[in-house]
Amino acid sequence: MSRPHLITLLTDFGEQDVYVGVMKGVIAQFVPQVSVIDLTHHIPPQDVWAAQFNLSNAYHYFPPETIHVVVVDPGVGSQRRGVAVQATAGYFIAPDNGVLTPILQRETIQHIVSLDNPEYWRTLQPSTTFHGRDIFAPVAAHLAQGIAIAQLGSSLTLEDLQQLPFSQPQVSPTQISGQVQYIDHFGNCMTNIPAHQVMGRNWELLLSGQTIPMSRTYSDRDPGEVAFLIGSHGWVEVAINQGNAQVALQWQVGSSVTLRSKP
Amino acid sequence: MSRPHLITLLTDFGEQDVYVGVMKGVIAQFVPQVSVIDLTHHIPPQDVWAAQFNLSNAYHYFPPETIHVVVVDPGVGSQRRGVAVQATAGYFIAPDNGVLTPILQRETIQHIVSLDNPEYWRTLQPSTTFHGRDIFAPVAAHLAQGIAIAQLGSSLTLEDLQQLPFSQPQVSPTQISGQVQYIDHFGNCMTNIPAHQVMGRNWELLLSGQTIPMSRTYSDRDPGEVAFLIGSHGWVEVAINQGNAQVALQWQVGSSVTLRSKP
Amino acid sequence: MSRPHLITLLTDFGEQDVYVGVMKGVIAQFVPQVSVIDLTHHIPPQDVWAAQFNLSNAYHYFPPETIHVVVVDPGVGSQRRGVAVQATAGYFIAPDNGVLTPILQRETIQHIVSLDNPEYWRTLQPSTTFHGRDIFAPVAAHLAQGIAIAQLGSSLTLEDLQQLPFSQPQVSPTQISGQVQYIDHFGNCMTNIPAHQVMGRNWELLLSGQTIPMSRTYSDRDPGEVAFLIGSHGWVEVAINQGNAQVALQWQVGSSVTLRSKP
Repeated sequence: MSRPHLITLLTDFGEQDVYVGVMKGVIAQFVPQVSVIDLTHHIPPQDVWAAQFNLSNAYHYFPPETIHVVVVDPGVGSQRRGVAVQATAGYFIAPDNGVLTPILQRETIQHIVSLDNPEYWRTLQPSTTFHGRDIFAPVAAHLAQGIAIAQLGSSLTLEDLQQLPFSQPQVSPTQISGQVQYIDHFGNCMTNIPAHQVMGRNWELLLSGQTIPMSRTYSDRDPGEVAFLIGSHGWVEVAINQGNAQVALQWQVGSSVTLRSKP
Repeated sequence: MSRPHLITLLTDFGEQDVYVGVMKGVIAQFVPQVSVIDLTHHIPPQDVWAAQFNLSNAYHYFPPETIHVVVVDPGVGSQRRGVAVQATAGYFIAPDNGVLTPILQRETIQHIVSLDNPEYWRTLQPSTTFHGRDIFAPVAAHLAQGIAIAQLGSSLTLEDLQQLPFSQPQVSPTQISGQVQYIDHFGNCMTNIPAHQVMGRNWELLLSGQTIPMSRTYSDRDPGEVAFLIGSHGWVEVAINQGNAQVALQWQVGSSVTLRSKP
Repeated sequence: MSRPHLITLLTDFGEQDVYVGVMKGVIAQFVPQVSVIDLTHHIPPQDVWAAQFNLSNAYHYFPPETIHVVVVDPGVGSQRRGVAVQATAGYFIAPDNGVLTPILQRETIQHIVSLDNPEYWRTLQPSTTFHGRDIFAPVAAHLAQGIAIAQLGSSLTLEDLQQLPFSQPQVSPTQISGQVQYIDHFGNCMTNIPAHQVMGRNWELLLSGQTIPMSRTYSDRDPGEVAFLIGSHGWVEVAINQGNAQVALQWQVGSSVTLRSKP
């Protein structure tokens, strides 16, 4: 494997403060030449569900030597572990709180370690509230420098790691009942119904007594109309052409979505 | 021309989601060493007017080999074309919906192509809702790698491209009537009256029966007072020293602005 | 000293507009290969207090050759000076309005200049409203290129520079009275009580007749409970485990915070 040269950051730090900049400063102290790319820093505070969704839709568009660092960490400073995971799709560094669930379920996992070797931390006495700065960023920088993942701490197995309990859609030959799992900046609502469930059959969305046909893209519908389609993430998505479906439908994460097969 | 080494991104994606990060991942897969600079991702959704204004105020501060990618794209997935434009001031990649109007009107255009050669897309079956990821980012990366623009698709002429219908200010020897075309983060209101219209004469701003003299900078006025000046963009600007003109004046894009020549 | 290779930006520009991108374009015109890291662009408009707090918590995590550019500038275009400061901890470029106070008070200062040599500006006639683009960014780029700081303008002494009047906490053997100096994205409230004031003794936070014991980290308290601890910045911090202290306590910058020593 060629040497990792790219680090991504996914956090709930927002951009009001210097927390993200400080992580980049720490990385630059170790490896000035590494590129750092922001996935997003606007995960709602402590929302591991939104974090895993965003991570799951991003990592496979990066070179496989990329080091993905996720810091959404309600248990910072507690006994929860920090972990590094080497998969064929990339390296992943995060608190062990379920944010890596999609990686653990989908990818071939090659190595997992607990980040318990303080030699690769920024300091032997890390802050109890900012492991991003004192543990996750320096560990990522060391990996980018070519340190082997096995050096970073004790080996773990897949069974040692926390995973989130995903809810699956209810599928029958004539109906699929799922729910909204994420709502993006445009107000587009991503359901937990994967594309393959609706391929090869005709479905319509049931919405307040109306039925909406499946579209290919937003603009197949008139501006302001509800569109029901397969989103770029690979999930069934409900949107409004040139509008905001979250606002118009008053949906939120967890809202029910029902599809019915067309005769 | 030396090889392009810089890509800028201007979108309405916001920063809540990983859409921007994914475009950078796709670019890094092709050209890991290229620098990517964010112009802004906070264009209001589908607002091609705000997109063209921001683009027009940014591109000439970049090296002329820079590749500017604009993804504000209400027609994504429809028959609207994607285009690449080579000008002396840089390369521009965007949907053909008018966002490049200032470039087409101001700059020397050397080459225009439709992005219809799928060889330079990320996939032969691009998503119908995320051309930023599947077409615009990979095309920009290929240009940065040194692929000639003519390779990217069929040639077009200037007349083939959509342009936005700008409204011009009404100018008489004693009065100029324009309107607000953009309001920035500080609440400063940029009009559509260009600096050259007010050069060499004395003008005052008419505001609810009052007249405001022209200033050189914000702090020529007391804190909280309205300032009327030539902004850093080269447009007549109405601001409030250490305050927010949009809020105080209750202006919006399209609000009327009237200047009167001083005797 | 090795050649500077990193520039950071800290502004109140927000990210709605292209102001930050334009500064990066100007820097790239001079030194395409330099890395530019955003500290934050979400300082409240013209808030030099928030700017100095964020700068003071960031710069020491960067390599000491880093060039930190601060553009929070209520006096832009007036007679206020622009300055460059060389310290052992880095270079600092800013308007002379107090934003560099923590640097001037804490660090060893090696050289200070007024940015009055127009040879290193972008243009001999800089905008009166955007010195970030026309003076601060090009000066930073020239420093990054290896220009000596003495070239940038007339020498100044420490006494020439504006400094902000910090309020100090009131300390007695049994009580410390301070105030909130900054509230972050999570609603965590940073006081002006430094860590060393509470080390080695037991303190409790007085809050509406209740007392809150000192914690080591957020999760030492139940979700929703107030936590009182030493923050990652080195200041006494009041937070709510997995919650927002600013909202729950209705605190703002300047709110009083009282600690009492435990018997």
